[in-house]
Amino acid sequence: MKILSSVDIGEKNVEALKKRYSFIEFYMYKDIVEAGDHLRDAEVFVTFGFDTTADIIQKMKNLKWLQCMSTGIDMLPFETLKERNILLTNVTGIHGIPIAEYVMAVILNNRIDAFRFYEQQKNKIWNRTVKFEEIYGKTITILGTGSIGKEIARKAKAFDMKTIGVNTSGKSVDYFDEVLPIGELNKALAKGDYIVDTLPLTDQTRKVFGKEQFESMKSSAYFINIGRGATVDEKALIDALQNNMIRGATLDVFEKEPLPEDNPLWTMDNVYITPHISGLSNMYMNRAVPIFEHNLKTYIEGKDDYINKIDLNKKY
Amino acid sequence: MKILSSVDIGEKNVEALKKRYSFIEFYMYKDIVEAGDHLRDAEVFVTFGFDTTADIIQKMKNLKWLQCMSTGIDMLPFETLKERNILLTNVTGIHGIPIAEYVMAVILNNRIDAFRFYEQQKNKIWNRTVKFEEIYGKTITILGTGSIGKEIARKAKAFDMKTIGVNTSGKSVDYFDEVLPIGELNKALAKGDYIVDTLPLTDQTRKVFGKEQFESMKSSAYFINIGRGATVDEKALIDALQNNMIRGATLDVFEKEPLPEDNPLWTMDNVYITPHISGLSNMYMNRAVPIFEHNLKTYIEGKDDYINKIDLNKKY
Repeated sequence: MKILSSVDIGEKNVEALKKRYSFIEFYMYKDIVEAGDHLRDAEVFVTFGFDTTADIIQKMKNLKWLQCMSTGIDMLPFETLKERNILLTNVTGIHGIPIAEYVMAVILNNRIDAFRFYEQQKNKIWNRTVKFEEIYGKTITILGTGSIGKEIARKAKAFDMKTIGVNTSGKSVDYFDEVLPIGELNKALAKGDYIVDTLPLTDQTRKVFGKEQFESMKSSAYFINIGRGATVDEKALIDALQNNMIRGATLDVFEKEPLPEDNPLWTMDNVYITPHISGLSNMYMNRAVPIFEHNLKTYIEGKDDYINKIDLNKKY
Repeated sequence: MKILSSVDIGEKNVEALKKRYSFIEFYMYKDIVEAGDHLRDAEVFVTFGFDTTADIIQKMKNLKWLQCMSTGIDMLPFETLKERNILLTNVTGIHGIPIAEYVMAVILNNRIDAFRFYEQQKNKIWNRTVKFEEIYGKTITILGTGSIGKEIARKAKAFDMKTIGVNTSGKSVDYFDEVLPIGELNKALAKGDYIVDTLPLTDQTRKVFGKEQFESMKSSAYFINIGRGATVDEKALIDALQNNMIRGATLDVFEKEPLPEDNPLWTMDNVYITPHISGLSNMYMNRAVPIFEHNLKTYIEGKDDYINKIDLNKKY
């Protein structure tokens, strides 16, 4: 049995796997180019997903199981996977902590006007005039109440924020003061001082944020997207930001990535851009590899208790 | 009875006080220059403290009570206050929330390398290479376990940080996993990934942070001062930062304020400077005025249940 990886899972992790599963041939690389020669033979493919085109899958004649080491799987060639009936698993659930740290960072950054003082320092300016508004008592509206949304809400509660969640059914979830069903999205948005999009991209979530949604928000609302770029109608967002329909935005994800140079978001005063890094952390592989290893054990033993087995029709 | 204020406590607050205490003459100004004409007559003086020199107190022949509307009172002319036996109260306790928000902001800023992405955005650079270290599981050592230190620890616990406090006695305090007495300061510092100075300036706290203390810290430690500048030996701090004895610092307070133009801290790569703003917030007067009003009622009624009555010998 041959396992091919286009993901650097860390030397120690590789060593441990080889030792524990000495009957398996591991071909562990750092990208798909290096991995190229072994596509044909591999039974298992470990990948971040963005390198996994339909063409690659066609070349992998022996592929039976694809372990995606990220959470977002919208870029995968689902039709091809379905035809070949390939098992698909991902690592949903491991991003709660780093992403919640990122989200609280950008909210608090905004609260203390961090970039203004950064610029003042460059010019040795001591200007104490501020228009601070504490986040204490403010409302945060979070789209998605899964592991990421819940972890953000948990941290927001320590700042005495009011937490509103939005999910499919409206069923209550820990750390949320209130949860509304997606049908009442605009009502939930209207209450938010900070609005966080944690949504994965599915047929249901594509362009959930359009003109109407930005119109529903307070003009003082601050929008944060760490979900998927395509859950937002980017034109409507740009329009809302240019016309001060909302106060500003922090964006980690975009319709097209890398964000094209001519996209107006790059140069807007009220926009902070990060290059899809909110989920990255030193703890990433510490949390992702155990999921892979659990699934490997299941695969070898022919059981069916996979962690994060994806329904190829539903795409989640 | 005449009350003079050199502090803008907000029009609504002034109106409410005048209505409730119609037998008092209120002279409410926005600074000491405006207030000048009424120094002689005032029995009560409401001030932020920095305008209150020995000379001013001498001119206030009728002064009996000084309500300081800030927490730091180290700049007050204590000898003169003692000679005249003037009652002194301050607003200790109201800064916990804004300062804890500020401290978590700069810790998280550091964690997500926020200024680097800010610069990348200016140049439309999409560079995803990061060396993120989550704050999850890191240790925060907080000097001072009063209202500010405790609020920081409370928020840090929501990020699953380990919280170590340092106070006079080492007695345990809510939200701290461990509290050490000041005698074991260096031991507490050696454990910290983030070290926060919340100390007021007293004879005991002057230059608590010297060469030895910075030497005790991890080379990866990040230092934050929101207490008082003079609790730190600024030369020793600059030396520690220049020689990478510690990773970096965020400083909101300094030995001399405004920070002089020729101070090397302004231009150091691993230093973030803010102009003594960590305690400022839109909620400030909402929390400070009720303390003043409680004390005013006590003063009028001749009772002695003042909030934050200061011992002029101990200076706290």
